[in-house]
Amino acid sequence: MTEITRHHTATRMSQIIEHGDTIYLAGQVGTAGAPVARQTQDCLDKIDALLAEVGSDKTRILQTTIWLADMKNFAEMNAVWDAWVPEGHAPARACGEAKLATPEYLVEFLVVAAR
Amino acid sequence: MTEITRHHTATRMSQIIEHGDTIYLAGQVGTAGAPVARQTQDCLDKIDALLAEVGSDKTRILQTTIWLADMKNFAEMNAVWDAWVPEGHAPARACGEAKLATPEYLVEFLVVAAR
Amino acid sequence: MTEITRHHTATRMSQIIEHGDTIYLAGQVGTAGAPVARQTQDCLDKIDALLAEVGSDKTRILQTTIWLADMKNFAEMNAVWDAWVPEGHAPARACGEAKLATPEYLVEFLVVAAR
Repeated sequence: MTEITRHHTATRMSQIIEHGDTIYLAGQVGTAGAPVARQTQDCLDKIDALLAEVGSDKTRILQTTIWLADMKNFAEMNAVWDAWVPEGHAPARACGEAKLATPEYLVEFLVVAAR
Repeated sequence: MTEITRHHTATRMSQIIEHGDTIYLAGQVGTAGAPVARQTQDCLDKIDALLAEVGSDKTRILQTTIWLADMKNFAEMNAVWDAWVPEGHAPARACGEAKLATPEYLVEFLVVAAR
Repeated sequence: MTEITRHHTATRMSQIIEHGDTIYLAGQVGTAGAPVARQTQDCLDKIDALLAEVGSDKTRILQTTIWLADMKNFAEMNAVWDAWVPEGHAPARACGEAKLATPEYLVEFLVVAAR
């Protein structure tokens, strides 16, 4: 039985879960109503900050699942993503269209990383 | 090579997969055609039962991905979820809109937990 | 800190990530514009090939998340899936509707497997 460590735990979710060498982040969203490039950068900034809290970083992401509220924003989101991913350290990735909690959210990132 | 243990294995899927200290559940749905609150409770009851079979429980969920067939049901689903999550033990969570296998299913829960 | 090994790493994603005994594959799609049965078989063939590269195979899949661009293709996709899954080794599975990177893609498979 491996210990589970939680960070930023509220009623509904924890922002970070550590289990052994694996880290699970809650789905990250950006500034509601902002353009998709800005929302993408917001998400990636939050991922950087959360991973830093547990001694990890973007070179150690294992899997990223991206939900785009409208696939027409695929290229704009990708431009921000491609610039952010460290060369040689891209994770397994998938991107599908899913409407999010409110129409003001255009993109959400689900991340599994390693310590 | 860590052993994989499967439970309730049919042609299409297993309801529970154990691998090391990590447990993967098949996507759980509720009573087709029932209101979303009832379907949500059905899913959570099934998760409780499946985790109990492998010596885990809802205090040890790592990641939950929720698919809602229509995001208009977000608040109703959340009310049931929030009441069910044990205080201080909320998992990493994400919720997006996705139509499900049949229109009678309104919500589906994907769970990764720890032993 | 467990080592991460990446295969087929491009700017945007790696096709395979190995972390301890767990393998994460990038979302797999088939031949754009082909019928759903063919696209499904393409995805499963790619999964076979990728898992073989890291000494795993379809008897060791832990979790599969399937995105169908249109749930009307559920039965056709399932027929190919059911024929491919090795008896007694079905993974945890979930299938939801999500439009994909382009309208020519009808199905995408997200796979987590064990070494």
